[in-house]
Amino acid sequence: MSIAVEPIGWVESPLVERDQAPRQGDEGAPEAWLVFVDSVLDGLRDLRVGAEVIVLTWFDRACRDTLVVHPRGDRSRPAQGVFSTRSPDRPNPIGLHRVRILAIEGKRLRVSGLEALNGTPLVDVKPVLDRDTER
Amino acid sequence: MSIAVEPIGWVESPLVERDQAPRQGDEGAPEAWLVFVDSVLDGLRDLRVGAEVIVLTWFDRACRDTLVVHPRGDRSRPAQGVFSTRSPDRPNPIGLHRVRILAIEGKRLRVSGLEALNGTPLVDVKPVLDRDTER
Repeated sequence: MSIAVEPIGWVESPLVERDQAPRQGDEGAPEAWLVFVDSVLDGLRDLRVGAEVIVLTWFDRACRDTLVVHPRGDRSRPAQGVFSTRSPDRPNPIGLHRVRILAIEGKRLRVSGLEALNGTPLVDVKPVLDRDTER
Repeated sequence: MSIAVEPIGWVESPLVERDQAPRQGDEGAPEAWLVFVDSVLDGLRDLRVGAEVIVLTWFDRACRDTLVVHPRGDRSRPAQGVFSTRSPDRPNPIGLHRVRILAIEGKRLRVSGLEALNGTPLVDVKPVLDRDTER
């Protein structure tokens, strides 16, 4: 039984090829726009500039058959099970990104460093909770 | 265009009804088992007891038409757009859970407080990164 996820929007970014994309958002990823579909706009109404949010994306150019990877694509490092890595190649390639909202223009949110490629589907946006950050 | 997510397993929990479930895992949620399908077992091989991981679930009993909610179901609080809340009711009801691995038995992982109901599909498991936790 598969689950049907309906994209709530997509990423607009200067990153267009996977080789260009940093491994993580804090490794020099550019700012990006999140553009939402009209049908979900009511859900955005309490987002504010300056807030940190968790953005979930769907890495649509990932390989879903991959279960073991060399971390960060470095073949000198031992291969690891994908569930111990953040590789985009995994059975359900959901990207998890913690970003700050820099601007809001109608159905578009400008966010800080995001390592997702242009056109990547958006799946969800959530507030950051204390329990996400406590150690 | 919808995206087909294939569950990688499911939750075994004493929580069977939504009214029983705590709002968050650190609010008294019980320990649970994550049970994986055979086809993804190679991806689990580097997970270790004691590690903290992020588990993504699919809240299959959520309402996907909801865009505005009263936070925590409290009608005395003003309604908010779902993307500013952790309500399970949202267009793509993906649950985000930070838990600790307590035991590993073959294709089953025992994890600390998880607020997902028995039978909830598992979508992904990721390691916690520093960037998830820095403020």
